[in-house]
Formats: sequence, structure tokens, C-alpha cells
Amino acid sequence: MKIVIAPDSFKGSLSSEAAARAIQEGILRALPDAEIVLIPIADGGEGTVDSLVQATQGKKVAVTVQGPLQEPVTASYGVLGNGTTCVIEMAQASGLMLVPAAQRNPLITTTYGTGQLIKHALDQGYRDFILALGGSATNDGGAGMLQALGLQLQDAEGRELAPGGQALAQLAQIDASQWDARIQEAHFLLASDVTNPFIGPHGASAVFGPQKGATPEMVALLDQALAHWADLIEAHTGKAVHDMPGAGAAGGLGGAFQAFFPSRTRRGVDVMIELTKLVEQLDGASLVITGEGQTDGQTASGKTPMGIAQAAKLKGIPCIVLSGSLGKGIEKLYEHGVTSIHSIVNAPMSLQEAMSRTAELLAQKAEQVMLTFLAGKRKEE
Amino acid sequence: MKIVIAPDSFKGSLSSEAAARAIQEGILRALPDAEIVLIPIADGGEGTVDSLVQATQGKKVAVTVQGPLQEPVTASYGVLGNGTTCVIEMAQASGLMLVPAAQRNPLITTTYGTGQLIKHALDQGYRDFILALGGSATNDGGAGMLQALGLQLQDAEGRELAPGGQALAQLAQIDASQWDARIQEAHFLLASDVTNPFIGPHGASAVFGPQKGATPEMVALLDQALAHWADLIEAHTGKAVHDMPGAGAAGGLGGAFQAFFPSRTRRGVDVMIELTKLVEQLDGASLVITGEGQTDGQTASGKTPMGIAQAAKLKGIPCIVLSGSLGKGIEKLYEHGVTSIHSIVNAPMSLQEAMSRTAELLAQKAEQVMLTFLAGKRKEE
Repeated sequence: MKIVIAPDSFKGSLSSEAAARAIQEGILRALPDAEIVLIPIADGGEGTVDSLVQATQGKKVAVTVQGPLQEPVTASYGVLGNGTTCVIEMAQASGLMLVPAAQRNPLITTTYGTGQLIKHALDQGYRDFILALGGSATNDGGAGMLQALGLQLQDAEGRELAPGGQALAQLAQIDASQWDARIQEAHFLLASDVTNPFIGPHGASAVFGPQKGATPEMVALLDQALAHWADLIEAHTGKAVHDMPGAGAAGGLGGAFQAFFPSRTRRGVDVMIELTKLVEQLDGASLVITGEGQTDGQTASGKTPMGIAQAAKLKGIPCIVLSGSLGKGIEKLYEHGVTSIHSIVNAPMSLQEAMSRTAELLAQKAEQVMLTFLAGKRKEE
Repeated sequence: MKIVIAPDSFKGSLSSEAAARAIQEGILRALPDAEIVLIPIADGGEGTVDSLVQATQGKKVAVTVQGPLQEPVTASYGVLGNGTTCVIEMAQASGLMLVPAAQRNPLITTTYGTGQLIKHALDQGYRDFILALGGSATNDGGAGMLQALGLQLQDAEGRELAPGGQALAQLAQIDASQWDARIQEAHFLLASDVTNPFIGPHGASAVFGPQKGATPEMVALLDQALAHWADLIEAHTGKAVHDMPGAGAAGGLGGAFQAFFPSRTRRGVDVMIELTKLVEQLDGASLVITGEGQTDGQTASGKTPMGIAQAAKLKGIPCIVLSGSLGKGIEKLYEHGVTSIHSIVNAPMSLQEAMSRTAELLAQKAEQVMLTFLAGKRKEE
């Protein structure tokens, strides 16, 4: 019996790869001769590079770039097995995980390092890019990335702007004379589930600023600075990112891509499904198992289990979701191909305990679910 | 599709009847046209009378008797649908639930009320008894019950003993001249899972005394008093209950039955399985669902889910266990017919929260398990 295992990460506990292995362990306890296909899914967040490099048997390229606070960091981008497509995870250069909690300050964090990664890949001759936008520490509207690629952002006295979102309030002029011309020859696919606009109450600063360390006062400053930046982007490129869906991704990095790059955006899970050839891998499968850290009505808005279930539904294959925690509204998922949804928690316990035992609990639940599924297969007398 | 639902109670949260209804609710959400048979199992503990009266369409008889502290309590015994078998739950007359926590004192609690229930049933002409021994507040070696039925227990000065286990230390003489002769014409089936002896480190006082309110000093006093009582029982009846398996049930009430009554003992769940005709009800079923509050290696020593699974196994029907909490050693259950075991907890939460939401969580888990089972039934393309 062929089983496809395609979980997201269990955030804070297990990477999608480790989650897939834990599920595999449980399945094999229930059915030792199962034919198992592991397709860990990182839907544009942390782990996307590793996951895609592994799925396509590609390679990783490590580069030292500027981190969110201009400190040197080693970031890797991936080259897929086709040898031509690069995967860049912005979080590797400009991610929140790189900044100790006490130093988180979106007024000054920059996407400069993400631009350096792109430049490095362009220098190697790559023109086909996938950008994973999850996990940013920044709120600079992508200004740092653009500067790293040659765009000059100057204040009224002609001085180059300092890094970070706050400095954009001083922007007077955009000078594209040094802008990297190779970008126009390239293709950029943005893997992102964020549909928020650049500015306003649903914009990058208001919605995502606080989790990056912004106080309410900082949110107001950043939103004003991004509004000014959006005005000048529009004057320069003719593209109004202010209310553009997805422009608010990664502290406005999404907007910078949409205005300055030949780019298109797809749901992270759909990018992963395509690149991992999940649909082809489903052929002949009896069951798909996916999972994530927390499942509720929001999952139906396009998270990993939802995308996997939709793909399984097209082939008429049952899809079971294993989750750390079930919230309200999970019944919405049934319409989209989800067969059943199980919490991995096996007794009353704290969140801390559940997170420290995720691999064990996930394996146990996978085993029990598999045994239940197999019981249904039994021929009745 | 026929589904048999046969859970134990979820102790402290749901009676076995309420648990069965919650599971039914979940099953019907997954499969609205399921043919459902509810067989709530109370394996000799609280709810046994209700459960058996309902299963056999019998009746209940309410009697006012002495409670564990001699206060008047209204206790009911059941008459099964056959019109001849009485079910007596000792906990209704002498149970721990009748004594507020602050007043729990096994030195003085008495089984007198249990004897009164038996006497009432004998007066009505019944001679066929099932005794459910779970949930006692007492440690009196059944002395109170025997006194209620005419046995005189006297101290060295010929005075009748006071109620409770402690007073047995003063016992000098047993006078059976007023003993109820009808008992010899009757049959007593003890439904009990307890195999502990009357006295010693594994005896009634040492093992069960503490949960009834005994301090270590009280345990020592009670064990000595029961040892003296056992000596005099042996002298009077020729039966040595000291080390007799099961004699330690219900604070030694089990020993009193074994010495003075024409009795035999069976595992509670087996008594329930027989009386509810569970085996016959399994005919044509596709699935059996059972459950209990806590499942671990101990469950395999003869608790409800184990008995149900063994019955299901004989007919080749899968049996799924739903449990509040999974502990160590559950894999032992697979050998005995258990198909899979699922905790109903659906997220990290406290024991208190899980217990206050048991019905909802049980219904949700039953639904998810049923959906998983049904997915296995799907014909593959």
C-alpha cells in the first residue's frame, strides 16, 4: 500500500522533514511493508530551501551577506535539480530568527542581505527565481534589497538613505542609473500566502510590525514612511503598491518585487506542490497524510494541509490531517478534500510538554490513524 | 452500517450512558444513516444498576437505608428484565461519593446499608443477586452488612460492636443465631475486578484505605483489625479469607461474601457483557467503539475496553478505544483485539478543561475516527 506523507512544519517543534519522518515511523509500526513517499512541505517559510533542494536533488550555495542589523550572516540559497532555478528564502538573510528578541527593531532592520543573495545568483548566471517571503524581521518596503541591487535612494541633500523602514520618510529621489539590468531578463516567482496591502490598517506595518518588535508608535512611523515610499515608487515605476494585495508581504518586500521586478505570486503550498511533483507522486497512493502545528478555520484559507487535500481530492485519495492542536471551524476543511483531522496530543498536557514531545506524539497518532484506516479496509464476513 | 458503542464511564466526567450518547453523536455526524446499538458498560462500579436496568428493560426499587456514616440515604437496587435477578450496587448505600471529603474516615464507615438493601430484596422474594462492589467508602470487612442481615458481632462483654473497621479489633464472639437463613437459598454473583487479598501489604486497608481517607496510622489499625476479624471468620466458617484473592474488594466486603454467602466472582466487564447480550448484539456489526477515562497497560488487566475488545475479536470485528488519556503500555491491548486507541484531547489543555469538555471532545474524536475508518472502506480506483 502506497502512502504519501506531506506535512508542513510543526512550528517551534519540528521541521517539515522531521515531521514527515515521525509520521513515517508511526505508519511503519502499523504497516511494516507500506510503500512510503515523503514530501515535506515548507510553504514559503523557513525550511523552503532545504525542502526544495531535497525534493529535486538540487544543491545549496552559501554566501556571507548583511543580516537584518547589518551584521554578517551566512545564508544559503538553493539551486533546484533542474540546474537553472534558484530558491531564495528571504528569512535566511533578513529573518526574524537572526535577531535576538531584545534587539528586534523594525525601524532599522533591512532586506539588504536578500538583495545580496539575488545579486550573487545573478552573478552565477541564474535568471529563474523562487522567492520564499515568510519569516522576515524587516519593515523596510524592500528598500534594502533594491539598494543591494543598485537602486540609489537619496534624501533631499543627495545622501544615500540609512537602512531600515524609518529612513524612508526622508526619501527625496530614486536614482536607477546603477540598477541591475539583469533583473529585467529574469523571472521571479513569489511564494507567499500573505494578501495584505502595503500600507493602512491591514498593511505590513500594522499587521506584522508588532511581531517584529514594533510598538504602536513605531507602527505609525513605519506606516507613514511606507506610504511616502509607495508614493515615490508610483512616481518612478507607475505602479501603485499602496493597496496592492500581497504588497505587504515580508514588511513590504512583496511590494518592491511587484513594482520593480518581473514577478508573479503564488500560494506557497501550490509552489511546493508543483516543484515536488506531488500530484504525480499521488498516483497509486491509497492515502495521503499531512499535518501542521495548529489547525482551525484559518487552515482552509490556503495553508499546507488545505493545498495537499485539494490535490488529493482531485485524484480521489483520502487525506488525513495530523495537528498539534485543533481549533474552531475545522469542519470547513471537509469541503476541500480533508477526510479527517486528529490532534496528536494523547492526554491532558501543557503546550510546552506537547511541543517537547511532538515527534513521539506524531508517530503515535500516525500509527493509530493508520490502524483505524486499515480496519476499514478489512473485508467483512 | 451497524456500529456497536460500548464504553465504560469516563470517571469524574461522564457516566457510561452519557459517554455512549456522545460517541453516537459523533458517529452520526460522520455517517448519518449508521445503525447504532448503544451498550453502556458499568463494570461493577457506579452506574451498574442504571446500566443493567436499562439494558434489560428492568426496574429500580428505591429504599432508605443507613449510609456509610449511619445517615439516612436513599439507595436503589435494580430488578432485571427477567423479573428475578436483583442488581445491588454497594456504592449506592455505602459509597465514597456519599461522604464529603472532609468526613472520610474508614475507621467508622459501615456497609450496614448494603446489608439493608439485600434484606429488602430478600423480603420481596428475590434470591438471585448481582453485587457491584466498586466505589466503597468502607473498610469494615463487610461486618456492617452481616450485622444488617442478623449476624451478631460481640465484644468480650457481650456488647454489639460499633460500626466501622476499627471496632473489629474488639470482636470476641460471632453469634449466628439470628442470621438470615434465606441467604443459603440465594445465589450471589460478585462483579469485581479487584484481586487483592483481605489483609497484608496488598490487602484492602493498605491498597484502598488511603483513597477512602486513611492515614498511614489508620491503615495499620485497620489492617490489624481485619486480621483479627479474618481469624474469627475462619474459626466460625472454616474459610480463611486472609489471603483469598478478591477478599480485599470493597474494604473487605468481598471476603465477607466469600465466607458467609453462596457466591462466585466474575470480572465486572464479563458480567456486563453477558447481561447486556453484547456478543449477540455484535452480529452484523462493522465496528465496535469502546472507551474509558484513562488507558494504559493496566487496561489490559481486564478493564472494560479489554473485555469488549476480546468479545469483538472472537467475531472478527474491529474495536476502537477512545480514551481521555493514553499512558504507557497501550500496545499490549493489540493482542487482545484492540484495533486502535485514540485520546479525545484535541489540543494542549489542562486535566480540568479536558474533564469539563469530555462529551464534546468525545463526539469530535468519534467523528474523526469514523471518517478515517470509512476512508479505509472506500474502493480504490
